[in-house]
Amino acid sequence: MGKTGKQGHKKRYNSEQGTTIHSLNESSGGVSFGVSAGLRDAMEDALLNQNFEGVKKLLIDLRAQDISDLINHLKHRFREPLFHLLKEDLDPQILVGVTPSLQIELLNLLDIEQVVSVIKKLPSDDALGLLETMDEEWVHRILKRIPVSERSTFEQVLQYPDKSAGRLMQREVVCVPEHWCVAQVLTFIRDRPKSMVQLPRFFYDVFVVNPRHHPVGRVPVNQLLRHDSETLIQDIMMENVNAFPDVADQEDVAQAFKHYALVSAPIISSSGRIIGMVTVDDIVHVLEEEAEEDILYMNKVKGDSDFYAPIPTTAYWRTRWLLITLVNTLIASYVISQFQASIQQITALSFLMTINAAMGGNAGMQVVTVVVRALATRSLLEEDTWRAVRKELGVSLLAGGFCSLLLGVIAGFWVNSVTLGIILSVSLICNMLWASFAGTLLPIIVSRFNLDPAISAGPILTTTTDVFGYALFLGLATLFLM
Amino acid sequence: MGKTGKQGHKKRYNSEQGTTIHSLNESSGGVSFGVSAGLRDAMEDALLNQNFEGVKKLLIDLRAQDISDLINHLKHRFREPLFHLLKEDLDPQILVGVTPSLQIELLNLLDIEQVVSVIKKLPSDDALGLLETMDEEWVHRILKRIPVSERSTFEQVLQYPDKSAGRLMQREVVCVPEHWCVAQVLTFIRDRPKSMVQLPRFFYDVFVVNPRHHPVGRVPVNQLLRHDSETLIQDIMMENVNAFPDVADQEDVAQAFKHYALVSAPIISSSGRIIGMVTVDDIVHVLEEEAEEDILYMNKVKGDSDFYAPIPTTAYWRTRWLLITLVNTLIASYVISQFQASIQQITALSFLMTINAAMGGNAGMQVVTVVVRALATRSLLEEDTWRAVRKELGVSLLAGGFCSLLLGVIAGFWVNSVTLGIILSVSLICNMLWASFAGTLLPIIVSRFNLDPAISAGPILTTTTDVFGYALFLGLATLFLM
Repeated sequence: MGKTGKQGHKKRYNSEQGTTIHSLNESSGGVSFGVSAGLRDAMEDALLNQNFEGVKKLLIDLRAQDISDLINHLKHRFREPLFHLLKEDLDPQILVGVTPSLQIELLNLLDIEQVVSVIKKLPSDDALGLLETMDEEWVHRILKRIPVSERSTFEQVLQYPDKSAGRLMQREVVCVPEHWCVAQVLTFIRDRPKSMVQLPRFFYDVFVVNPRHHPVGRVPVNQLLRHDSETLIQDIMMENVNAFPDVADQEDVAQAFKHYALVSAPIISSSGRIIGMVTVDDIVHVLEEEAEEDILYMNKVKGDSDFYAPIPTTAYWRTRWLLITLVNTLIASYVISQFQASIQQITALSFLMTINAAMGGNAGMQVVTVVVRALATRSLLEEDTWRAVRKELGVSLLAGGFCSLLLGVIAGFWVNSVTLGIILSVSLICNMLWASFAGTLLPIIVSRFNLDPAISAGPILTTTTDVFGYALFLGLATLFLM
Repeated sequence: MGKTGKQGHKKRYNSEQGTTIHSLNESSGGVSFGVSAGLRDAMEDALLNQNFEGVKKLLIDLRAQDISDLINHLKHRFREPLFHLLKEDLDPQILVGVTPSLQIELLNLLDIEQVVSVIKKLPSDDALGLLETMDEEWVHRILKRIPVSERSTFEQVLQYPDKSAGRLMQREVVCVPEHWCVAQVLTFIRDRPKSMVQLPRFFYDVFVVNPRHHPVGRVPVNQLLRHDSETLIQDIMMENVNAFPDVADQEDVAQAFKHYALVSAPIISSSGRIIGMVTVDDIVHVLEEEAEEDILYMNKVKGDSDFYAPIPTTAYWRTRWLLITLVNTLIASYVISQFQASIQQITALSFLMTINAAMGGNAGMQVVTVVVRALATRSLLEEDTWRAVRKELGVSLLAGGFCSLLLGVIAGFWVNSVTLGIILSVSLICNMLWASFAGTLLPIIVSRFNLDPAISAGPILTTTTDVFGYALFLGLATLFLM
């Protein structure tokens, strides 16, 4: 295949066309968007039968984001053939929309000239996103083929730390002095000299700067429309600008956007000058990514694209996490094995001991989850570590105390032994207190080492609650009943 | 206390004031925003000592969102006294920013006239958010005291289903016919008659409508600024409008916003007329809420404000989830207890059996997590259920097969029994296949019943993998070794 699909479908998947009325799906009541299973199946059929006319027909009217979505949804073996058909007249936005691991795969199917043309055609932040997935040598080779003016922009931005505001921002930003009137601003926007930095494709605020180019206010664009041309900017500007340093963590910026309900914000250099801006559409992705990573890591799934990856890749990712569970569970088993003599004599221990481990593990996961999210949303202030520990210990004393008592009574009646009931109760409340203590501290400690608290806290904590739970219960039983 | 803090702090916590330069925190490298622990402590001190001058000083320069944040962070017993001081000259935005359970608490401290004044002062979507937290009788009483014109708007919006686009939208939206020129649009915006629907406080797109008021295009506001006043709207309008029905689920709308990187979108009635718009800042909250709920529910924590709630409340919420674990673990214990005779004879069973349950539970949680998120982000199409099941079974066969083999060999050597090694391997792979099968189907089935897949899939699945894991391993061992 390869070059057959070239002629005729130029511009058909132009991303700027077509009013989309999202209709309600009759059966599910949901709104349909993106790619339907029907379209996906039809595409797979067409590709299987090498029916390239059919493929082209299916692509008509699809926006770039939908074609990305289609590629994500296709079975792995159909992705490459479809991309070969798209390649000749490639809408670069298609590459932006596929999952990161697919981006690498698809970029490898292009020669360097094609990659360079993709990078040139994309807005600077999207181009940067693609460059970030490539290895350094490729980035170097690509940048060499880009005109100096654009190249230096990329090179500057790539010098910012990974996931910083500097990486996230676009350099295009509208700044005006406060003594201007509305008419001057409008002229500035309409007739700016070609030599100046380009206007952003979309902007929601015009930022007001002092002579040193420091932010002092902002004017929402719709305010410019509402006021007479003679109105002075300083009379209509809002003073509540939130400006962020270029080296700030993008997640901090995102949380501040959410907190203050911002739509755009200037990014400033270390000297306080405005050097770019961040807009809310980038923030949506940062917030989602952060939450998504927490969900997946805490439940031991790789951070992205697990859903779209082919079976062997997914299996490989999952196995790595399962091996952690495997080691964890072997350690717990070893602890239990040390008490074989006790278990042989009192077999009730064998079924009561699992209660302790399960309850401790679950209570610990509750605490870890709350702490990880409080860290992510910047609700938990670092100085408040001990306040948080105290609260969780208090919660544990109440919730754990109640559950321990209840389970102790149930177990005591079940195996008809007051002593065993008491032993279960005592070891259970101890394990749950430990779960609260460690569950609060572990994520905080892990994040001090600049690791993602979600990734490391879950497995470590469960191992300790398992080991502690089994050892304490079986140990106490051995001590008092043997 | 109560009325002491009245005079003098008018306008001081005006939310429209003050340029905020978010500086980097030297020690953590993070960006500070919101409330510091120092401010919180100082406030608690001042309230404890009834030092109301001190309280007022601390409130100076705080924006409404920061005051909300401060209230969230205060110990429970200080929240009411502070709110009493704020009450006399209340910035209604403060109520918008506190956690939902606190909103109810604080609203109860106001008399009905004060609540009515809060509702009147807020933009319609924020006011609606507050009304939604109140019980029906209160809403009824409040609406009776609001002028008919505003009241009918609220009443109409409250008729939309909970969490629908109609609830999320603001009714203020700018619509223009396509034959107008830029100058006409600007005049329309500047000099619209008072009788018409108000302009939105912020808007990013002007929507182009046909004579039937159906959407046919949009013009980003910055485009209006860039073109000459004679330019026709139809020449600069973009045709890619995404319009959503008023009854659409807000999560569907949010996912579509993310998918197509939208900033604002018109909401249409069943006849296709534009009746409002949704903007991206609302969408940020919907997306976060959805992800947050998934995280918390999957790890058995209540959906909101657990972090800020007082200890007894948190303990109560956590206990309800722990009771589910308690029942789950008692069922598992009961299953184990049925095999006491076998365990007494071969005590190795007591420590090997936990491996099976732990591995099955973890593999199941991996699958549930991926499926729950794929459902939330609309990546998993309903028609593809069996495709997803097939994939997960394939992954399980590879990942589970590898782990089972490895653990079988380890266990065989450990307890020096080939038969036990084989029994562990076989029961383990069966349990992991079950975990994949049930882990894929359960969230899908649960969501068909319009329940949140995250809430119900985790606990149910773990119970089955525990029971299945113990029963199969101990059953096979009893069958072949006794």
